[in-house]
Amino acid sequence: MSDNGRRDRSWWGWGWEDQALSDQECRSYAGLMEGLAADPMPVPTVADLDLPAPRVAAPASLAHLMADTPDERASHTYGKAYRDVVRALRGQMDSPPDLVARPRVEPDVADLLDWATGAGVAVVPFGGGSSVVGGVECPGDGFAGVVSLDLTAMNRVLEVDTISRAARIQAGALGPVLEDQLRTTGHTLRHYPQSFEFSTLGGWLATRAGGHFATLHTHIDDFVESMRVITPAGPVETWRLPGSGAGPSPDRMFLGSEGTLGVITEAWMRIQDRPVHRRSVSVAFGSGSDAMSAVRAIAQSGLYPANCRLLDPGEAGLAGASRSGEWVLVLGQESAHHPVDTEVDLLVDIARGHGGVPSPASTSTSTSASAAGAQRGPGGRGEVTRDGAAEAWRSTFLRMPYIRDAMARVGAITETFETATTWDRVEVLYESVTSEIGAAVTEITGRPGLINCRFTHVYPDGAAPYFTVIAAARRGSELAMWDEIKAASMDVLTRHRATVTHHHAVGRDHRPGYDRQRPELFAAALGAAKATLDPAGILNPGVLI
Amino acid sequence: MSDNGRRDRSWWGWGWEDQALSDQECRSYAGLMEGLAADPMPVPTVADLDLPAPRVAAPASLAHLMADTPDERASHTYGKAYRDVVRALRGQMDSPPDLVARPRVEPDVADLLDWATGAGVAVVPFGGGSSVVGGVECPGDGFAGVVSLDLTAMNRVLEVDTISRAARIQAGALGPVLEDQLRTTGHTLRHYPQSFEFSTLGGWLATRAGGHFATLHTHIDDFVESMRVITPAGPVETWRLPGSGAGPSPDRMFLGSEGTLGVITEAWMRIQDRPVHRRSVSVAFGSGSDAMSAVRAIAQSGLYPANCRLLDPGEAGLAGASRSGEWVLVLGQESAHHPVDTEVDLLVDIARGHGGVPSPASTSTSTSASAAGAQRGPGGRGEVTRDGAAEAWRSTFLRMPYIRDAMARVGAITETFETATTWDRVEVLYESVTSEIGAAVTEITGRPGLINCRFTHVYPDGAAPYFTVIAAARRGSELAMWDEIKAASMDVLTRHRATVTHHHAVGRDHRPGYDRQRPELFAAALGAAKATLDPAGILNPGVLI
Repeated sequence: MSDNGRRDRSWWGWGWEDQALSDQECRSYAGLMEGLAADPMPVPTVADLDLPAPRVAAPASLAHLMADTPDERASHTYGKAYRDVVRALRGQMDSPPDLVARPRVEPDVADLLDWATGAGVAVVPFGGGSSVVGGVECPGDGFAGVVSLDLTAMNRVLEVDTISRAARIQAGALGPVLEDQLRTTGHTLRHYPQSFEFSTLGGWLATRAGGHFATLHTHIDDFVESMRVITPAGPVETWRLPGSGAGPSPDRMFLGSEGTLGVITEAWMRIQDRPVHRRSVSVAFGSGSDAMSAVRAIAQSGLYPANCRLLDPGEAGLAGASRSGEWVLVLGQESAHHPVDTEVDLLVDIARGHGGVPSPASTSTSTSASAAGAQRGPGGRGEVTRDGAAEAWRSTFLRMPYIRDAMARVGAITETFETATTWDRVEVLYESVTSEIGAAVTEITGRPGLINCRFTHVYPDGAAPYFTVIAAARRGSELAMWDEIKAASMDVLTRHRATVTHHHAVGRDHRPGYDRQRPELFAAALGAAKATLDPAGILNPGVLI
Repeated sequence: MSDNGRRDRSWWGWGWEDQALSDQECRSYAGLMEGLAADPMPVPTVADLDLPAPRVAAPASLAHLMADTPDERASHTYGKAYRDVVRALRGQMDSPPDLVARPRVEPDVADLLDWATGAGVAVVPFGGGSSVVGGVECPGDGFAGVVSLDLTAMNRVLEVDTISRAARIQAGALGPVLEDQLRTTGHTLRHYPQSFEFSTLGGWLATRAGGHFATLHTHIDDFVESMRVITPAGPVETWRLPGSGAGPSPDRMFLGSEGTLGVITEAWMRIQDRPVHRRSVSVAFGSGSDAMSAVRAIAQSGLYPANCRLLDPGEAGLAGASRSGEWVLVLGQESAHHPVDTEVDLLVDIARGHGGVPSPASTSTSTSASAAGAQRGPGGRGEVTRDGAAEAWRSTFLRMPYIRDAMARVGAITETFETATTWDRVEVLYESVTSEIGAAVTEITGRPGLINCRFTHVYPDGAAPYFTVIAAARRGSELAMWDEIKAASMDVLTRHRATVTHHHAVGRDHRPGYDRQRPELFAAALGAAKATLDPAGILNPGVLI
């Protein structure tokens, strides 16, 4: 807590400062695997940091929007990847932004871009700062300085169209901030990435974030009706349309542009009635092949469950969903309109047909949960029927990033990478990644580590496996070791032509893999589009293009 | 029939030559409204035409792929809009392509583009030639000549991945040609635009075609896994991925590019198991407001019916679905996996709750139709439970373009335009279009006409109304009159910020409205992308950019 009672965000690690694990808790994680340090790395205070002096000063006309305090600069230096946390813990803050700007209204954004274009200052759009791919970090080589453009003061739901079920929302709204406003009319955007509390609508749009829907509507892209984007060349506003075939979609050019083409300031988003019928079940499988076959059959059934997460034995064990070496499938369906029991029964039937054993709770039926009683966040939004495995998994899901920080402090490399591939290659890819990255970890760190996997999103034609790596690193060499493991992961993914990222975005960290994945001429075309919208090339240099 | 027994395509009108209505049948339509001509315009033969001489000759290396015969040139001069049919009937063929090229393999496409770039010859990609927006017609001003690039010889399903349910299909495959091949493994692409028989995969992709699914997966975009595109600068191939968040989607830049950025040669498409459970019902409404409310509630229910077409009283009457002045909603659900009776019951309940009266057949239950017994085409794909209204509508749907040609021959302007808008504006837009375009028709033609409407696709946040205009024109002034009506339609649509096209594409005919709709800076960015991929600007000049 800060002096004024406001809850503070951690400048160095995930989320809220007061949620970080204590030194004592960190020590308890040191026993998890051999080779971890008994003493956690200390957490430096901002006052301990030796930040380079700002290279550029705010012009008088914009000074009221900008700050160069160490607090602001430190907390905008990195995203929240493992390598960001380690660098922050080490006090290794070589390239903080020179200034942090907090526009209050859209014209502020245009003014800031005008000034930056003229002054040759790089601008890094910054939402919740939860990037795990180096998306908000910029050394600013070749520029007079770097401004981190923090959008979180622009966080209002400006209009709700209850007829069309759509809302005009400012891009700087963090997940809970926009959901709190939508709740007043009984609606929800229902987009719950793991970073929900600490990421913004604009960040989700710029990175094509993946939400909590496991099928059908997985990426934020599907919920976009129109967008407003301020580019250095001027504003771009698309029409609110439920569907259109008028040329290539303008929205789709900005979705995934990661702050390189313009600053998204607001969007009309498709919202939903809050679900009142829910049912969640879990199913155990003795073999991965059976589990994957079941998930494929479910994905191809046209039933489109809201949740369909498959945990491999390691992941299930870590999440407390199963300790008996089984694969665990967490299934859920929900509706604002009709009971979902029949659909869940059909889903369970499919799983059974592939050798799955539903947990006892799976046979119970759902009751309606009142919309008013629904809690916020991805962890407990009014589900009224769930079993222990599903519950355990949800709880771990939210707590995991804080544990990751604790593990980092005792020398454990704890990081994730995720991908997607077609069903014909899913099992081969799973085996290939777990064995090759497992071998790489042993070779690089000198000890075996854990490689776990869950499938976060599934499609009729494929799945999105999400891997977690936990390994004991030699203190001082953590980053070099992780970078080697990460390079090996990009190598195996791209060799299988699996995407270098399903929903974490490209940023700076995925560039080597992305440059192999994206067609050369598409990169050239996108570069030409950027040169038109951002002639001075000030927007998030080094990302994507 | 041609001499060799092969069924011939009409060079001047819709579809098969032998399906065109006879003079006698045309005369029967002349009685439909006052002011039509008793004698149908004669149909000229290609031999009657006075085509300008080709301006450019095929180079020796490509001569085996190219033809300059009057038959080929005449049948590639226009698409199949009303204005195309009238110009063909008049023998008004001022700007035929100089050459028609039919590449057999992908390298042929690259060779043709290389030659055209060097020779300053415009290239118009041509699939089935069913464009109704001037998408395949090109005067070639400022070019040495124009080549129509007919892709229909590249029409094979090259691979089927039954695990991932995806197929690699050449872009020149017409609807029935690709469905015949997919049927051998029990699959279907299940994309049935009205032009299904006479349009190609590549054409669907290039124009973001709308299929027969009324909800959820409406545009072809949703079925694309990856694409190969030959641009003048080289090939672009995207990875087969079920989902990805790696930068802006490369596929989405080419989807809707209407042949201006490159020639789509093949795509991996998501295919489906052939549905075996189907049920179709119709519901009558006494008021348009009630009908639209019902459709909105259905679209927002999460039930996602496969069919959900709302016909206004004029459209229902014309289709023979109802003669009593009611609105008629045709609903259908289908599945390859599970019976759909419960879902259809829920849909009917919603409709009833908004004042709808289901037809008696709606209470019957569906039976499974064997996949083998399913017929091809959008008109009869194994539905086993339907009622008279649904049947009448389907039959008219397929026959309509031939009737349109017959009506054109007796002087009736018969044309459609379509759009999409959010639910808050749907009813206002419907009223505005029917009254304003009704008034425009009376003013321009001197007589009242018919303005009918159906909703072809519906979304949680809006709907896609599709208008049909039928009016008696003064012979010789048909096109001028229609052009005035069309301009009025684009004016009313863009005034309401409804899209200038939901699935017919932009072509040359929609440019005035499109130029108002698309953001100026997006056009500039797209132009820059085009300059990179097509430096000489030879691809479909005048379309989109």
